[in-house]
Amino acid sequence: MSKRIGKQTVRLSEKVSILSAASTVGPKEAEGPLSKYFDQRVEDIYFGEKTWELAESKFVEKNMGLAIQKANLKPKDIDYVLCGDLLNQCTGSTFGIKNLEIPFFGLFGACSTMGESMSLGAMLIDGGFANYVLTGASSHFCAAEKQFRFPLPLGTQRPPTSTWTVTGDGAVVLSRKGDGPKIVEITTGKIVDMGVTDANNMGAAMAPAAVALLKAHFEDTGRKPQDYDVIATGDLGTVGRQLVVELMEKEGYDMDSRYTDCGIEIFDAKKQDTHAGGSGCACSAVTFCAYFYPKLVSGEIRRMLFIPTGALMSPTSSQQGQPIPGIAHGVVIEGCKKGAK
Amino acid sequence: MSKRIGKQTVRLSEKVSILSAASTVGPKEAEGPLSKYFDQRVEDIYFGEKTWELAESKFVEKNMGLAIQKANLKPKDIDYVLCGDLLNQCTGSTFGIKNLEIPFFGLFGACSTMGESMSLGAMLIDGGFANYVLTGASSHFCAAEKQFRFPLPLGTQRPPTSTWTVTGDGAVVLSRKGDGPKIVEITTGKIVDMGVTDANNMGAAMAPAAVALLKAHFEDTGRKPQDYDVIATGDLGTVGRQLVVELMEKEGYDMDSRYTDCGIEIFDAKKQDTHAGGSGCACSAVTFCAYFYPKLVSGEIRRMLFIPTGALMSPTSSQQGQPIPGIAHGVVIEGCKKGAK
Repeated sequence: MSKRIGKQTVRLSEKVSILSAASTVGPKEAEGPLSKYFDQRVEDIYFGEKTWELAESKFVEKNMGLAIQKANLKPKDIDYVLCGDLLNQCTGSTFGIKNLEIPFFGLFGACSTMGESMSLGAMLIDGGFANYVLTGASSHFCAAEKQFRFPLPLGTQRPPTSTWTVTGDGAVVLSRKGDGPKIVEITTGKIVDMGVTDANNMGAAMAPAAVALLKAHFEDTGRKPQDYDVIATGDLGTVGRQLVVELMEKEGYDMDSRYTDCGIEIFDAKKQDTHAGGSGCACSAVTFCAYFYPKLVSGEIRRMLFIPTGALMSPTSSQQGQPIPGIAHGVVIEGCKKGAK
Repeated sequence: MSKRIGKQTVRLSEKVSILSAASTVGPKEAEGPLSKYFDQRVEDIYFGEKTWELAESKFVEKNMGLAIQKANLKPKDIDYVLCGDLLNQCTGSTFGIKNLEIPFFGLFGACSTMGESMSLGAMLIDGGFANYVLTGASSHFCAAEKQFRFPLPLGTQRPPTSTWTVTGDGAVVLSRKGDGPKIVEITTGKIVDMGVTDANNMGAAMAPAAVALLKAHFEDTGRKPQDYDVIATGDLGTVGRQLVVELMEKEGYDMDSRYTDCGIEIFDAKKQDTHAGGSGCACSAVTFCAYFYPKLVSGEIRRMLFIPTGALMSPTSSQQGQPIPGIAHGVVIEGCKKGAK
């Protein structure tokens, strides 16, 4: 009866299907290399609202609605919604989903939230508690800068290791039935604290958590990086990705070109002046939904290890001299057989 | 295979056992009517730390450790820890549990967190994904006042409808085996927004969510209030409890004296000047762990409906004129047979 296959990994018995995936992004993401893949591109960073925080909630509301619509369902068909964001007390999510009237589990996993929500959502279905679960994550560049760094009108210079918070929402509908890509295994991360304190180098803060997750996953499953068509971390950017490659090499794993990071995929760092890459809860969420999900549906990706990464800090904890602990959550997704869908 | 018995309710098949419960509280709680029931009473509101936020994390760390110890387990035996708090980005929880090195799902359910963590934890066990899950919730009066209301040194007068955030942490170890009280049903709340905007009247903001949860639970299970020995909401206080009684009466339910609120139990409002009662994530968490859990173990309570309640707002959302949506999560717990333990 136990579905545990290792210290941090469970294998699902029912093969939970990802019935639909939706992505809605802001203007900068719409100018990036993944532009054509997004479902909705919003030119107005305020999304017609008076504040950035309300704009984020609108990204959530519109995109969650779209994910349900793409699954040919109504909100009342969904048993649970699980989501979260970076705003204090996760108001991006709560004000975004309140009108859906779906039983709600609020999550805080920082930028690992998409991994956390997919993990818990898949287990709720596989455990027999739900037929359909909506999971997602959101972030907003302006709201995040204001809250975590500096007021935007200051025009503060950003160091090269800094990343750019993605504006948008990514959401999937998970189902007990259906022929979509399947969530087959879940490796849940522990908090890893290496004492990094630089809030402008989140890649370095989160890389050790990604490495710990990768190691745990490979040990639990007996696999190696080459058993996946794609391994994608969440928002480590170029600095964090390089650290993962180097640290994994020391552990005896060759993280070759099949390993990428959503923060690298989503922006053209040189043209778009995003320094080390994209970040924020939405970074892995929209990149998965827009870019990887269709490749899983087409069968171009047969097996993917998706690892959203999060930095578990607050401005208060940083001001009080505390380090930035990281976490990462791994989800293994198997693509549809080529030509099957 | 489906465990769903209604629109918002699932019935567990394995009867997940609550193996242990631990509570650690601050000085004001130690002076209250439940004083003798708490496992640990800390006289120093700083718990030996330099800041209130670090103190909250220490409450989490010490109490989570105690819950594991009371279950005769080690941290490595626990498959998942699920917890959350009120601090921005939930740093009370993350800095509190990081040294436990247990796979972690961070939650944000505001003061409903204990209900959310017990719900998800129980489903992870019942679904076959875990043998032992640690779930909990924490809050700290000073850290919460500073973050949500006014700096404490101002000595701001508090209106009679206001509640007093409980300082402490409550945690339980859930198990696949064991003869402790059992979690048998879970009713998951939707967000309810009645447009209340008064951050000094959280009881009124959350009462409609508690009423919606009660109605959904009774409809899903076909039961009535009199089918429970105890029904306890989380932190509505006297104002919120009265609203629940009146609103439920209109719905045809008689919420008699078996219905209480943890915020009413934990303080002696007159003697302790706590106005409408206790609140905060820890309010329902420590009251459940210290006061109700032993009565479930002894069999004095045969069936309890535990409903932690939360207000999903932030200072930013309130400053931007947004209402205070509420949520409530219901957990049905059956006590041990008298004399069985």
